[in-house]
Amino acid sequence: MSKSVAFLGPEGTYTEEAAILHAPGARHVAYPSLPDVVAAVDSAEVDEAVGPIENSIAGSVNDIVDALIGKQKARITGELLLPIDVCLIALPGTSLSQIKRVRSKAEALGQCRRFLTEHLPGVVLEPYDSTAGAVSSLFAEDGTVAALGPNRAADLNHMAVLKTGVQDRTNNVTRFVVIGREAPGRSGRDKTSIVFDFDREDAPGLVYAALKPFADAGINLTKIESRPTGEKIGVYYFLLDFDGHEQDDDVRSALAELQRHTAMFKVLGSYPRAELRAD
Amino acid sequence: MSKSVAFLGPEGTYTEEAAILHAPGARHVAYPSLPDVVAAVDSAEVDEAVGPIENSIAGSVNDIVDALIGKQKARITGELLLPIDVCLIALPGTSLSQIKRVRSKAEALGQCRRFLTEHLPGVVLEPYDSTAGAVSSLFAEDGTVAALGPNRAADLNHMAVLKTGVQDRTNNVTRFVVIGREAPGRSGRDKTSIVFDFDREDAPGLVYAALKPFADAGINLTKIESRPTGEKIGVYYFLLDFDGHEQDDDVRSALAELQRHTAMFKVLGSYPRAELRAD
Repeated sequence: MSKSVAFLGPEGTYTEEAAILHAPGARHVAYPSLPDVVAAVDSAEVDEAVGPIENSIAGSVNDIVDALIGKQKARITGELLLPIDVCLIALPGTSLSQIKRVRSKAEALGQCRRFLTEHLPGVVLEPYDSTAGAVSSLFAEDGTVAALGPNRAADLNHMAVLKTGVQDRTNNVTRFVVIGREAPGRSGRDKTSIVFDFDREDAPGLVYAALKPFADAGINLTKIESRPTGEKIGVYYFLLDFDGHEQDDDVRSALAELQRHTAMFKVLGSYPRAELRAD
Repeated sequence: MSKSVAFLGPEGTYTEEAAILHAPGARHVAYPSLPDVVAAVDSAEVDEAVGPIENSIAGSVNDIVDALIGKQKARITGELLLPIDVCLIALPGTSLSQIKRVRSKAEALGQCRRFLTEHLPGVVLEPYDSTAGAVSSLFAEDGTVAALGPNRAADLNHMAVLKTGVQDRTNNVTRFVVIGREAPGRSGRDKTSIVFDFDREDAPGLVYAALKPFADAGINLTKIESRPTGEKIGVYYFLLDFDGHEQDDDVRSALAELQRHTAMFKVLGSYPRAELRAD
């Protein structure tokens, strides 16, 4: 049986595009939420999952990280960088001049503001819960309504792509992570994601001390974020991405030193760093 | 004429609740997006604005910060902490046992998962673009549909609140910022928000050095975040909140030292720190 890969549904989203890019031959299974996606991997209901983690139109990093914190088996095993190509999609036969309303996720409408102002001035913008949902909703409309969404959603729904690349920023890239149960060994070009917190409420003041082991070892940090835990304002946890593998000697030492300061501490995963392929 | 305060619409959202809490007697004006909200303050179309900046059901920090970076006059002049009370809302006369479908923003559906599993097992969850929109959509339905949203949306739409506080986490608090054009003076319990970047691509590796002036001066950091700029993966900007006012001597020195390392640098605002009021 082919490998199964969970993704945040519905079908036709950028996340499904990423899941297909990651494992073209796999069986791709839509789940209703990112916590469900992570739980499906942890319970071995599926082999792997793909979800957005940064600069995403389709979802949020915190859902995945929050879900991973409590899991025994699910961990980050890889990452993908996907250029986000937003398409203007309508019923076949529609011309630009007919369009009076454009619907999509609010974030996608915002990301295409310049195109909409220049080419579709005065159209009514209709926020939708997902880009894919906006595209499939066109079935019930006449040719005066268009959607902004992924090429794949147009394909699945047999809709016409009037224009590709309508997003304002040409370098619109989303980072997705692969969730699996087996920790990959060293590839020589790895990064590691960790999450931790402190047992003091003014924890962000401790962050400088927590970063010292990495600075001393010359380990390059590639992401840092303090997130409110939701339990109480003023209580934060920290996300850190850095170059290196948890089995590297310098990383092991830095993590051991860091854990002298932390309360909760967890390695979310060490995995090969993705490079954006040049076109 | 009373003061005008912009907020991210539609009416009935938690953001409108925060805008009313901030300035009860003001004229509150709904805008379609957070960039529009910030632009309205910058162009003096309105006096002030209120928008979500952290742990929010209703929006995202980055929209406000992105919008503030390019503005000459608009800046953060205050903050508010609002406990988010999610209500189960339905047509008057509806009982729990009738409900077959529940709609809300996807984030709100996720935040009430425990309640839904325990009290409404098997209901269909319908993601909506806004909590307020989910509530007003109930007009077109019979009593088998309910919404999760703010008390204010129930009031505005003459709907019944079947249950309050249905969110899983009882300490669900959103931080909102006030945007204005006049920088507030020192209150003695201030915090400052800044944004900056570096001119090197491996910028996150520089963050430790950038934090040194604050650690040396004993200035407590209350938030730190690296954000992809959207221009290119690997190029980040940094958000920092810390205790103190930009006119304080130690803060001025730390900021001057920090600017020796940064490319872009901007003070988003110094403003009195909000405290969560005990009930």
